[in-house]
Amino acid sequence: MTTYPYPMLERPSMIWTKQTEKTTDLKVHEWIETIGEGTPNWSLYDATILGVPLSKSSISTSAASDNPNAMRLAWKSFGTYNLDEEIDLARLQILDLGDVKQHVTDIAYSHDRIKEAMTAMQQHHSRAIPITLGGDHSITAMLVKGWKDAHPEETIGILQFDTHFDLRDLQQFGPANGTPIRNVIESGTVAGHHVHNIGLHGYFNSKSLKDYADEVGVHYTTMKQARRQGMQSVVEHALSQLQDQVDTIYLTVDMDVLDIVHGPGTPAASPGGMYAEELFEAVQIAGEHPKVKAMDIVCLDPRKDVGDITVKHAVHVMLSFLTGYYKRMYHSSL
Amino acid sequence: MTTYPYPMLERPSMIWTKQTEKTTDLKVHEWIETIGEGTPNWSLYDATILGVPLSKSSISTSAASDNPNAMRLAWKSFGTYNLDEEIDLARLQILDLGDVKQHVTDIAYSHDRIKEAMTAMQQHHSRAIPITLGGDHSITAMLVKGWKDAHPEETIGILQFDTHFDLRDLQQFGPANGTPIRNVIESGTVAGHHVHNIGLHGYFNSKSLKDYADEVGVHYTTMKQARRQGMQSVVEHALSQLQDQVDTIYLTVDMDVLDIVHGPGTPAASPGGMYAEELFEAVQIAGEHPKVKAMDIVCLDPRKDVGDITVKHAVHVMLSFLTGYYKRMYHSSL
Amino acid sequence: MTTYPYPMLERPSMIWTKQTEKTTDLKVHEWIETIGEGTPNWSLYDATILGVPLSKSSISTSAASDNPNAMRLAWKSFGTYNLDEEIDLARLQILDLGDVKQHVTDIAYSHDRIKEAMTAMQQHHSRAIPITLGGDHSITAMLVKGWKDAHPEETIGILQFDTHFDLRDLQQFGPANGTPIRNVIESGTVAGHHVHNIGLHGYFNSKSLKDYADEVGVHYTTMKQARRQGMQSVVEHALSQLQDQVDTIYLTVDMDVLDIVHGPGTPAASPGGMYAEELFEAVQIAGEHPKVKAMDIVCLDPRKDVGDITVKHAVHVMLSFLTGYYKRMYHSSL
Amino acid sequence: MTTYPYPMLERPSMIWTKQTEKTTDLKVHEWIETIGEGTPNWSLYDATILGVPLSKSSISTSAASDNPNAMRLAWKSFGTYNLDEEIDLARLQILDLGDVKQHVTDIAYSHDRIKEAMTAMQQHHSRAIPITLGGDHSITAMLVKGWKDAHPEETIGILQFDTHFDLRDLQQFGPANGTPIRNVIESGTVAGHHVHNIGLHGYFNSKSLKDYADEVGVHYTTMKQARRQGMQSVVEHALSQLQDQVDTIYLTVDMDVLDIVHGPGTPAASPGGMYAEELFEAVQIAGEHPKVKAMDIVCLDPRKDVGDITVKHAVHVMLSFLTGYYKRMYHSSL
Amino acid sequence: MTTYPYPMLERPSMIWTKQTEKTTDLKVHEWIETIGEGTPNWSLYDATILGVPLSKSSISTSAASDNPNAMRLAWKSFGTYNLDEEIDLARLQILDLGDVKQHVTDIAYSHDRIKEAMTAMQQHHSRAIPITLGGDHSITAMLVKGWKDAHPEETIGILQFDTHFDLRDLQQFGPANGTPIRNVIESGTVAGHHVHNIGLHGYFNSKSLKDYADEVGVHYTTMKQARRQGMQSVVEHALSQLQDQVDTIYLTVDMDVLDIVHGPGTPAASPGGMYAEELFEAVQIAGEHPKVKAMDIVCLDPRKDVGDITVKHAVHVMLSFLTGYYKRMYHSSL
Amino acid sequence: MTTYPYPMLERPSMIWTKQTEKTTDLKVHEWIETIGEGTPNWSLYDATILGVPLSKSSISTSAASDNPNAMRLAWKSFGTYNLDEEIDLARLQILDLGDVKQHVTDIAYSHDRIKEAMTAMQQHHSRAIPITLGGDHSITAMLVKGWKDAHPEETIGILQFDTHFDLRDLQQFGPANGTPIRNVIESGTVAGHHVHNIGLHGYFNSKSLKDYADEVGVHYTTMKQARRQGMQSVVEHALSQLQDQVDTIYLTVDMDVLDIVHGPGTPAASPGGMYAEELFEAVQIAGEHPKVKAMDIVCLDPRKDVGDITVKHAVHVMLSFLTGYYKRMYHSSL
Repeated sequence: MTTYPYPMLERPSMIWTKQTEKTTDLKVHEWIETIGEGTPNWSLYDATILGVPLSKSSISTSAASDNPNAMRLAWKSFGTYNLDEEIDLARLQILDLGDVKQHVTDIAYSHDRIKEAMTAMQQHHSRAIPITLGGDHSITAMLVKGWKDAHPEETIGILQFDTHFDLRDLQQFGPANGTPIRNVIESGTVAGHHVHNIGLHGYFNSKSLKDYADEVGVHYTTMKQARRQGMQSVVEHALSQLQDQVDTIYLTVDMDVLDIVHGPGTPAASPGGMYAEELFEAVQIAGEHPKVKAMDIVCLDPRKDVGDITVKHAVHVMLSFLTGYYKRMYHSSL
Repeated sequence: MTTYPYPMLERPSMIWTKQTEKTTDLKVHEWIETIGEGTPNWSLYDATILGVPLSKSSISTSAASDNPNAMRLAWKSFGTYNLDEEIDLARLQILDLGDVKQHVTDIAYSHDRIKEAMTAMQQHHSRAIPITLGGDHSITAMLVKGWKDAHPEETIGILQFDTHFDLRDLQQFGPANGTPIRNVIESGTVAGHHVHNIGLHGYFNSKSLKDYADEVGVHYTTMKQARRQGMQSVVEHALSQLQDQVDTIYLTVDMDVLDIVHGPGTPAASPGGMYAEELFEAVQIAGEHPKVKAMDIVCLDPRKDVGDITVKHAVHVMLSFLTGYYKRMYHSSL
Repeated sequence: MTTYPYPMLERPSMIWTKQTEKTTDLKVHEWIETIGEGTPNWSLYDATILGVPLSKSSISTSAASDNPNAMRLAWKSFGTYNLDEEIDLARLQILDLGDVKQHVTDIAYSHDRIKEAMTAMQQHHSRAIPITLGGDHSITAMLVKGWKDAHPEETIGILQFDTHFDLRDLQQFGPANGTPIRNVIESGTVAGHHVHNIGLHGYFNSKSLKDYADEVGVHYTTMKQARRQGMQSVVEHALSQLQDQVDTIYLTVDMDVLDIVHGPGTPAASPGGMYAEELFEAVQIAGEHPKVKAMDIVCLDPRKDVGDITVKHAVHVMLSFLTGYYKRMYHSSL
Repeated sequence: MTTYPYPMLERPSMIWTKQTEKTTDLKVHEWIETIGEGTPNWSLYDATILGVPLSKSSISTSAASDNPNAMRLAWKSFGTYNLDEEIDLARLQILDLGDVKQHVTDIAYSHDRIKEAMTAMQQHHSRAIPITLGGDHSITAMLVKGWKDAHPEETIGILQFDTHFDLRDLQQFGPANGTPIRNVIESGTVAGHHVHNIGLHGYFNSKSLKDYADEVGVHYTTMKQARRQGMQSVVEHALSQLQDQVDTIYLTVDMDVLDIVHGPGTPAASPGGMYAEELFEAVQIAGEHPKVKAMDIVCLDPRKDVGDITVKHAVHVMLSFLTGYYKRMYHSSL
Repeated sequence: MTTYPYPMLERPSMIWTKQTEKTTDLKVHEWIETIGEGTPNWSLYDATILGVPLSKSSISTSAASDNPNAMRLAWKSFGTYNLDEEIDLARLQILDLGDVKQHVTDIAYSHDRIKEAMTAMQQHHSRAIPITLGGDHSITAMLVKGWKDAHPEETIGILQFDTHFDLRDLQQFGPANGTPIRNVIESGTVAGHHVHNIGLHGYFNSKSLKDYADEVGVHYTTMKQARRQGMQSVVEHALSQLQDQVDTIYLTVDMDVLDIVHGPGTPAASPGGMYAEELFEAVQIAGEHPKVKAMDIVCLDPRKDVGDITVKHAVHVMLSFLTGYYKRMYHSSL
Repeated sequence: MTTYPYPMLERPSMIWTKQTEKTTDLKVHEWIETIGEGTPNWSLYDATILGVPLSKSSISTSAASDNPNAMRLAWKSFGTYNLDEEIDLARLQILDLGDVKQHVTDIAYSHDRIKEAMTAMQQHHSRAIPITLGGDHSITAMLVKGWKDAHPEETIGILQFDTHFDLRDLQQFGPANGTPIRNVIESGTVAGHHVHNIGLHGYFNSKSLKDYADEVGVHYTTMKQARRQGMQSVVEHALSQLQDQVDTIYLTVDMDVLDIVHGPGTPAASPGGMYAEELFEAVQIAGEHPKVKAMDIVCLDPRKDVGDITVKHAVHVMLSFLTGYYKRMYHSSL
């Protein structure tokens, strides 16, 4: 009899052995615990990791479904100690819950399970901040809706790092990786003016999407604007606007926000995007903010990657977020 | 106003310019005509080509959706003249109809369109033999059903070259690339004993699938058996069995039947498979048979390919089939 | 009977289908028109695109001959709308004229055809700004000479982005990719002091070439100088110098000006070069200038490229230029 | 407190979850058990798997140290059922013991641990046949010596599939991947005439090595001879010679015996070698022989591999051996 | 002052150090001598190697100009001893003369130098058999003509291993890689019926080329015919026909004769071709024949190669030829 | 009889031909002299190059042993003239001494030879500054110790560019690539506070290593600090501190200090590192300093490289150092 906590999840078939004999000098794969048999002691955990191996909902061909395991393999080459910040993340307890079960041919079924997974996590261990490893961007709509189902009274805002608006027509595409923000807006889950998108650039969004964004009040900052104003200032500005308006800020990082040189491994890798350091800084600032309560990393296709650059950047994004989170928890009282 | 013949198809965005000033010494891309505006004179064509860029229904991650265009690009390096057979395929008239429109998130919708496309082709120009470039193997079930809808009175047999039975549980996977043969059997479209599968080998099919195959009477020949008996003999035997039992033989070529050395570009590339020459010979024999009235090439993932080996092999499979077809049309009376 | 406009050109064998049902929200491949049969209405077009698939004249082995089609394939992933500038390039009419016919073994013959193509374009539709996709850098000498043949009275200046002087000895190499600037200087087509080269750096030019450059008065700005002064300032300075001295400024972009990290796909990819954003900015500024009347993009070898980075950068260079051109046409009166 | 059985081994950091709810229709990663905490019930197991991630002893640069984990990852794409033989390997119980601990800079230390691991395995669970995944070929000398330490009274023979003699001068190279056979001969562990090497070919062994082989009586069959006589006949002949002379036959498979087309992922991949099917057949025959009591697979460098061809071939070699072993255990009474 | 023997040659910039302290157990790079300063003692050498880094004359984009150095680098992994034949090639004296100087933009000039190089070699050291490493196939016409200039009285035959006729129209292409055989026929250097081509197959030659071949009497054997009759028999038959008709047989090996699986690194790699072992056997037989007095290896593009497969096959072809040559010299009296 | 100067070195098997007919306009491979037969006139040389093809001492799998030859091949694409500085390095005389002989299985033996090589060089030609091309970082400890043996009276400082401290436990790893700095500190060769490490960042050093660094007084500057203060300022500060404290500053460049985007070809390539231009600037400043008397470049794995980016960066690092050295020698009196 399997004792796996939620019916829509499945334990990873490939797992790392958590290091239990020491509590420092850990590599990330020795630190993050993979869920085992029996019910976890939920109260222990500061964050959970959830894989969503779904990219059938991608408009262009995508192997982002391979990303959760690619990131798990790659984090072996990172340690828990951040030398710049003199912070050892090993103080945080992280549980990898495995992956949401996916249906081979029924995307709607898979989407429902993703939504339920977020709701279940919030119901059973809302203390732990959920970090989701996609999958394509369609999953963000499901995760946000799942959050809403768990916290119907909450107002949710979105901080998005992306090359694209993701506001395409739901009628035409369905719940695809081009539509998640429109999805949560049209469904009333999130108000348009509670969305802040940073990183748009160049020739990768149509005029009609911009018009729609303006119409529903989505805030956006292009890369050129972000560089003129400074990434720190832009992110802090977005957060400070949101903190007065919403209860929860959901952070979503579409890895294609990266410049093609810094993130070749995304289906829509484009020139003119964000540099990796800019993204690390931005995400760490978001991680510090007390209203940022969930985050995801999406649209990373490991098969398109070159020299593991994009996958390692994604792991760094996760660690930067946790470093911000660490500072939120342990430094804020300083 | 678009004048494209069937509503479920779309003209290729990228097209070759057909060579009209000469009728010999043609390269394949100068020979195959791409559908233009206006209704084609259907009576001209000996064969049609249909792209089905769908691989969301694949069990493992697959970019077989990129295959129709990959094959179109690659056939530029082939000519129409077969030196071994002293046959110039340019005598055949081929029309590339473009691709079946795909829905981004609704696989069932896409599957319905594929089925309708086959039915429409049979209704409007049944003289032309349809050659379908997949896509994953799930499309075969749709194409065979579409044929059945157009010819409800016909008994259909299947000649399959494959590493796998493709008899997995429909309930569990839905109409996926592991289930097409079970799909047509369970739906009553094709009788189990009218299926002949050649090329199974090694450790790539479970015991329960073999038991199911035996139960429903599917005929199969493993690679070891095929090599002992000779490929020609095995294929001719299957065809001669089918010709007395069915009205139409549908030929389906899963490119993963190839040995991993000869076909690295398939999601499930495996050791111990068929060599390219064996497959070319087998398909050409099938092309000669008067009851083989449709064929498809599926499960080729161009992104996994190495040095374009698998894509070029797929183009050669198509040409070998047409060479057989040419002999059927022009040599049989000799 | 073919109705192709000029005898030295040939229609692309592979063409995109121009989108005619909408005028906005276009992808680049739906926007740029490929020449068809019959004489175009030349007065419609703002710019023409000309492919020159020649790299036999390259000193080092180069597949830059593959670049025109590589760029055509890649521009499918760009849209016409520039979000930063709020400009929709779709307002411009662009005609892709196809490629200059190349002789397999007679480079001089091919070079003559390139020169004639530029002359013919200037004679028949001088309103449209010609954008040439090379090919190696030898073609620039031919294009500039072709311009001179069409406008013998004009004084021509060159704005060059390049890692190299391209002033090598014509006697030794002939009209190769290392000699185009010397070629136009020695032939009297362009005066040495009307050449401005931006982007030279490091260990990639010999002392004697620098001495020759000084001798004939070529202006140059190394990467270190350009970064100290700011790219915008450097480019504007060069343009303002040229505008008082010449009638036409020819812009030539050797993609090897890019740093090897930003442009791995060039035969001579080198450390220490220009970053992609710097090049985009520089080219857009040039595009705005009313005396910049022709441009080319050369020395991009798609076979050396990694993750399509360099090819996508080249498409962005073309679009940045057109964005500048758009501003020249529609914003200058503001 | 860790309860790992032997001090020189370490549990794999990355492990598969054994499938316990069903006993058939298993994938290989669901079938092979990874050692956990506590002492295993040794009497259950038919075979053990041991990783030896050592390739510092390789003459040419080699990443064969990555091979144990590369094979573990790759066996996920194989099932336990062999359709050709109608055998389900799941009837065998296999335990993956993890890897021999390696010293970073002391190769002799690592070699001693490898030898001890074999001795320990023979002392504690000699019923289970040990399958070792190297590492480079130097480890074979250690494994054979470890066997000898456990069974000092036994006469050992070696059946080797290899492109090379591996008889190079121990004085010059030490216990390297070019010397293992000389090592066991000179140390008196194995008599020269108890070594049978199949697969040598072409220009990859020097004259002096051949002379040494003749001098010490090593038997060898070149690829050309093997093809003339038939692989089955050659292998059976070697086994029948050995069975009368030795107590134990140690099977060692150097993956570089494969032709470069079939095994690109070896440091010394060479033209003219064995085809994969030939190797599978040869190994399966060896697996059936009751005196073959241990085997290893060495010199596979996954970083040199193309499309995972060589790694998948190595997994197939392991399964072919186990299929032979299965037949030895369950079919011999037929 | 340089003392390089012929003005049209240049010493390789990168050279191996010949091993002079031992005469056996040599690797190929320790055995082949690279030309140094001073005039060589020509009477010592059994064979010369000449690089021709020209592929500007190729119809499709080709980096075959990189092949001479790619082969030189790769032969380091071969030894001089052939185990199958028990022959040590080190008994032969080989001199690498370096490369024919190439002009950057004047192909005709380069071609003339190639022709002169062959004439000069024949005039100064006709005892040594010349082995030429191309370059594309256009060079064969030059080498044969150069031979003719040195031996105007001789009748020359050609034994060609090729996927293509290489009989394309000289008027259209000039002396390109598709025209060398037509070139020597039309120029009267070789009679059409003195050409034997083995290895043609599939869809890679047009009907009109076959008609021309028939018209001028070129003999050809397709792959299917060669396999039916046996490669040995086919080659021996061609040689025995030629030996009565000509004084000299020139052997030309277009590496694209290889099946795409065995030779991915050629510009026109195609399915259905020759396997590497077949080619090795064929070339060795040719090497034994006393009238085969020169050979070349052409159309290998190392940049297209996968895992160095094709380059290593080319080195093996050279060694197989020399093994035949060794047998001709030392075994014929047996 | 070999006349090679030191017994522990071996002449490169592959050598470039030094250009002797001109003294300017040289490519690097025409400029650097490779050691020949006979004793060199040591007084001529300004710098020597020494290859150390050892990476068996690397903690993670590394092919850094291939780096010396990879750099030698790559420097063919650089010239000696630096346009930014208007310096022609050809004025310096450089001698490539070849490689330190390596033992296949005895790392300690190899390490001793490396140490002896440095001592020998200092004894015989201390005027020439030694530039060592590793190999992994373990060799730095040997080279520094060899220096100390030659100059026992000297105080040595280390300027290190690295992502890591390289202070791991010698007891556990031995003289590996993670321990060289600890090695020289614990052996008393260099005082901890005479080590300055620039470039540490992110999650790639454990807390205990930082504690050890603090304990022994190692100075370090993280990437974030370096960017805040400016690379020039940080390097000059370290040099000015060291110049008052030590006699000799040894410069060691671990190529993994580069950001993964700028240096994909290192075993531990990581996000957040140094950009190539920053490293070039830093090394050139160090090259100018009169107390910097030796340097090495380590931990570059050419097999992991992408598009030769990292190898070319390493060559540029060497040239930047020599440019600094040139300025030290010829500009300091200005």
